[in-house]
Amino acid sequence: MRVGLLTGGGDVPGLNAAIRAVVKRGEGEHGHTIVGFRNGWRGVVDGDVTPVSRQQIRNVLPVGGTMLGTARYHPRAEDGGIDAVIATLEQERIDALICIGGDGTLHAASKVAEAGVKIVAIPKTIDNDVFGTDKSIGFDTAVWIATEAIDRLHTTAESHNRVMVVEVMGHHAGWIAVTSAIAGGAEVVLTPEEPFDIEKVVKYLKHRHRSHASFSIVVVAEGAVPLKGSAMDYEVPVGKFGEIVAGAIGERVKNEIEARTGFDARLTVLGHVQRGGSPTPTDRILGSRFGVAAIDAITRGESDVMTALHGENIVLVPLPEIAGKIKVVPADLIEVARTLA
Amino acid sequence: MRVGLLTGGGDVPGLNAAIRAVVKRGEGEHGHTIVGFRNGWRGVVDGDVTPVSRQQIRNVLPVGGTMLGTARYHPRAEDGGIDAVIATLEQERIDALICIGGDGTLHAASKVAEAGVKIVAIPKTIDNDVFGTDKSIGFDTAVWIATEAIDRLHTTAESHNRVMVVEVMGHHAGWIAVTSAIAGGAEVVLTPEEPFDIEKVVKYLKHRHRSHASFSIVVVAEGAVPLKGSAMDYEVPVGKFGEIVAGAIGERVKNEIEARTGFDARLTVLGHVQRGGSPTPTDRILGSRFGVAAIDAITRGESDVMTALHGENIVLVPLPEIAGKIKVVPADLIEVARTLA
Amino acid sequence: MRVGLLTGGGDVPGLNAAIRAVVKRGEGEHGHTIVGFRNGWRGVVDGDVTPVSRQQIRNVLPVGGTMLGTARYHPRAEDGGIDAVIATLEQERIDALICIGGDGTLHAASKVAEAGVKIVAIPKTIDNDVFGTDKSIGFDTAVWIATEAIDRLHTTAESHNRVMVVEVMGHHAGWIAVTSAIAGGAEVVLTPEEPFDIEKVVKYLKHRHRSHASFSIVVVAEGAVPLKGSAMDYEVPVGKFGEIVAGAIGERVKNEIEARTGFDARLTVLGHVQRGGSPTPTDRILGSRFGVAAIDAITRGESDVMTALHGENIVLVPLPEIAGKIKVVPADLIEVARTLA
Amino acid sequence: MRVGLLTGGGDVPGLNAAIRAVVKRGEGEHGHTIVGFRNGWRGVVDGDVTPVSRQQIRNVLPVGGTMLGTARYHPRAEDGGIDAVIATLEQERIDALICIGGDGTLHAASKVAEAGVKIVAIPKTIDNDVFGTDKSIGFDTAVWIATEAIDRLHTTAESHNRVMVVEVMGHHAGWIAVTSAIAGGAEVVLTPEEPFDIEKVVKYLKHRHRSHASFSIVVVAEGAVPLKGSAMDYEVPVGKFGEIVAGAIGERVKNEIEARTGFDARLTVLGHVQRGGSPTPTDRILGSRFGVAAIDAITRGESDVMTALHGENIVLVPLPEIAGKIKVVPADLIEVARTLA
Repeated sequence: MRVGLLTGGGDVPGLNAAIRAVVKRGEGEHGHTIVGFRNGWRGVVDGDVTPVSRQQIRNVLPVGGTMLGTARYHPRAEDGGIDAVIATLEQERIDALICIGGDGTLHAASKVAEAGVKIVAIPKTIDNDVFGTDKSIGFDTAVWIATEAIDRLHTTAESHNRVMVVEVMGHHAGWIAVTSAIAGGAEVVLTPEEPFDIEKVVKYLKHRHRSHASFSIVVVAEGAVPLKGSAMDYEVPVGKFGEIVAGAIGERVKNEIEARTGFDARLTVLGHVQRGGSPTPTDRILGSRFGVAAIDAITRGESDVMTALHGENIVLVPLPEIAGKIKVVPADLIEVARTLA
Repeated sequence: MRVGLLTGGGDVPGLNAAIRAVVKRGEGEHGHTIVGFRNGWRGVVDGDVTPVSRQQIRNVLPVGGTMLGTARYHPRAEDGGIDAVIATLEQERIDALICIGGDGTLHAASKVAEAGVKIVAIPKTIDNDVFGTDKSIGFDTAVWIATEAIDRLHTTAESHNRVMVVEVMGHHAGWIAVTSAIAGGAEVVLTPEEPFDIEKVVKYLKHRHRSHASFSIVVVAEGAVPLKGSAMDYEVPVGKFGEIVAGAIGERVKNEIEARTGFDARLTVLGHVQRGGSPTPTDRILGSRFGVAAIDAITRGESDVMTALHGENIVLVPLPEIAGKIKVVPADLIEVARTLA
Repeated sequence: MRVGLLTGGGDVPGLNAAIRAVVKRGEGEHGHTIVGFRNGWRGVVDGDVTPVSRQQIRNVLPVGGTMLGTARYHPRAEDGGIDAVIATLEQERIDALICIGGDGTLHAASKVAEAGVKIVAIPKTIDNDVFGTDKSIGFDTAVWIATEAIDRLHTTAESHNRVMVVEVMGHHAGWIAVTSAIAGGAEVVLTPEEPFDIEKVVKYLKHRHRSHASFSIVVVAEGAVPLKGSAMDYEVPVGKFGEIVAGAIGERVKNEIEARTGFDARLTVLGHVQRGGSPTPTDRILGSRFGVAAIDAITRGESDVMTALHGENIVLVPLPEIAGKIKVVPADLIEVARTLA
Repeated sequence: MRVGLLTGGGDVPGLNAAIRAVVKRGEGEHGHTIVGFRNGWRGVVDGDVTPVSRQQIRNVLPVGGTMLGTARYHPRAEDGGIDAVIATLEQERIDALICIGGDGTLHAASKVAEAGVKIVAIPKTIDNDVFGTDKSIGFDTAVWIATEAIDRLHTTAESHNRVMVVEVMGHHAGWIAVTSAIAGGAEVVLTPEEPFDIEKVVKYLKHRHRSHASFSIVVVAEGAVPLKGSAMDYEVPVGKFGEIVAGAIGERVKNEIEARTGFDARLTVLGHVQRGGSPTPTDRILGSRFGVAAIDAITRGESDVMTALHGENIVLVPLPEIAGKIKVVPADLIEVARTLA
């Protein structure tokens, strides 16, 4: 078989582990040829292919990013996009396609599958909001980086008696915010799942600083929003791709806290460091297992499915079942974060 | 309620996260008093108590080890051990006990529960072989450390054209070995689950070095054993507590490889660094969640149960159901390690 | 002797190592009593003292920040500030004072020394711009953190074909920028030492992206400024303490690059994570050696001097000799950064 | 010019930074051609060359080991070795040679220079014992790794009331031992510079455990030896290349402590992890600066010199001046380690 392979959407650590696993398993065990497309769906539309055999994947396991390149590009948003995809796949004689990506890439994959192309998807996103899987590639590393940053800010907060506000990624779900807040021992965490009342936040901080501490860490997901009708009005500012403008909510929260408490407050926006660099072992293992499972599924003739982690097992879930759904942080995990503050 | 708390067996990173969660949740939400016992079951037998309130747990979240101390001590192995435990619990008016430990501690917990004491257990072990839970506290950090070491050995192996043998922990199960081998991109992994044939290992290494590489990484679990009747005879050397002598199997494997291939080989025994130092976010979060779940279970009057991770959820499993069982690495995960070599 | 001890200015990793060394050496070898002042000079003015004996310094070596607290407070800027300092020192019967700080703290120390107080200073600043010493406490850790961030951004830059702009600290000198640019393999570095011409930067980036690469890393010190009369006009925005507003120059540089090249560019402002968390071994050792040297100097009756690193040796330099001077990055080091781009 | 380049002796982190700098500066600024020899002097003797131009050095900066390979091979120890070196250099029309290595490599370089070959050397060794330079490439990373290990062992020592013995590298000088002991807060450090009396060590540990602590960390350099005539007799076991057998002195010290104190003691032998993996920023910068200085010196026609760090400056020192000398740890640094125990 000739199997196409692409990575789409934002890069995350662990993509190369998945690519490597597809190639090692695909070539070594099944005798397939793996054809890489550069820069996600754009490479498929443009016919931009690159070989990915065992020579290319040497030493990529601990390296972040994606050796195939990636882009935020959606073929179904372009006129004739899906047709161009199918034309390229025919020209390159691709029997099946493995797509590694987040929401957008998976949605596109589902549309292409509807057009008759055999597709197996692998979920990746540092936001961890892909429905149907316990974890997506990249999330564990992002939490690691965010926690390390909170650890570092902790000593500064304590030394200077400050409120440190940390904005982390998480547009539709607060996975990084909640888990790094638990791991870093933050006092407050604001997430998209539960709109916040700034007056309650301020009241809690005042109480804490009066009673037993002189510093606090406040973790804010970029997608956190104030409760409607609460004291703080706020319009979510979005960029040209619909993404949230980095630092917007963090800046507002920091300013509100400073103005309402009189405490010295500082903002840190973690930004792109959350999605780069060497993956944690967990992400390397998850990428490797997903890669093996995907090429095995392709070989068995499966299609329109996504590899997923359920407990300790890798399973396949139908793409249509997860389309348009978001996996949010469950209330009990948010409760753990709150109770440990 | 007055709730006793102890940590038993070998120390692991993440114990303090669990202790902190028990205290914060227990005092803050339920109004309990938490009474710590020093050095595991020995402290219960000796009546060696120490207060653990919110003052004591400040800043312990990112710190490895256990603030309560620990010891390898089994009350049921001592004459009158269980009686002494019960006497202390009555004297200290302990209503219920939270035990954080591995196999030995959990077994003891079950025995004490049989004697009528209310007990909730929390699993910890870097070996990850506690039955009934996806993960135990300490495992993720151990894999992180082992993978970092393999990453470091990789560049030396390649620069010097050597076979680097790395012995990692794992007495009855090869969890650290298999996962760090996948994450570190090792060529060979030897585990307790599958006795090995040194001739096959050597044949594979010769083939690899002849065809496309001049170096290899071989990960050996301390509990790995040669196949009966195979070329290498070996008696497992055990210490006074039944533990495996560190470096024993690693040294033998290294020597056999060197003698049978003529390649330059070196041994690294990771040893105790695997179980110390600051926990990964995953272990901090797991410890925190287990701690909250345990004190909540105690408050509801549950007993003779263990907190466990099932997929994304924390659940309770009956201690008797897991007694005497070992969770080994499933064959499909070992297959992933092998296929990616 | 009763020796006062304070940490002033911004916190940095390694302060606790110095405090610990002063206490261990002072108590253990010389029999002194060490009296800590909380929150820098403010604590001296307010008479806010705290004991620092061997009990307090346990386990602080690997911990960032300062156990004494710190504040940006200059006694000579307040009416009667110096008088209040001297009054407190007399009341607490302080024989000599050890001040750990950067420019501001050292300047204040010199003024207090002029008033007859015996003072030995220890230099700390992540900016590394204290004159008279090869290194100051905190610099090595800051470079470590900045380099780790650049490593992480590298993979994202490459995966997305982007220009990543990273703003690091460095108000009057570009030490962090130049060294992390060399260590991280950045393509462009902008520092306070050499005002930049944005047109040259843009020209270089266009050439690079045309000829052999599709991504770049640009490191910008917060104190970098455009060349007068060059294409980009810019007013340095300063905060209430005269500090530079974080992100200001980074934002401008990113926007100019994006507008003038059409390349996709992103900004990361490292901010406070650069000054927090566990110190590198180098900073722990430097802090320890400075602490020992300072208390030894105090014991010998020296005053109005600063501990300094000259090559491999710790020496003492007179405070008046360094007052008002800034140590900038030498041209040959900037040349190394440029030649390796 | 055609400039030869080799790395000899044990691999260390930072070699690739030096190689990259030689190539970037040599090709880019001076227009030279750089010819790499594989596996140190053996590659010169065998005529095993490999191109190292800008294509090859992409992404090597953060990677440990050496892309040229290395070997412990001394041409002057072989019959006709020096002649074979000169023959190869003539055949490849090499105008000058840059040798990156430790004692052995530098000694060989000096001999080859005597034969009329233009040579500039760059010092590397994790032991940091090359005479004439403040630091050699690899040392800073080794200290970082050793300190991280000591940090990890600390929490285990404390949790289990144990004496943890850590053997680190350092054959003729105890640089890693002394600096990591200071940085890690170890209680005892044993080095080649000062033969130890095990009875004094034991006496100190007993005193410490009696008075205020129940655990200790003992750092032992592999080259540490007991004082002649003291209680512990010991023959240094050496391997086939004259290197010390790993773990030998550590094992003996651990056993003596256990036998003489009755405390529970454990040994960790760090071994090869100390010399592998991604270099610290300090080693990347040192390698980069040495590389630039070496190729600049070659270009100016200098020979028989070594690049060296003196304070903040890179200078050249004549190879004959350093031949046969070892840089040991100065007494005042050992005193700092002792006073902070």
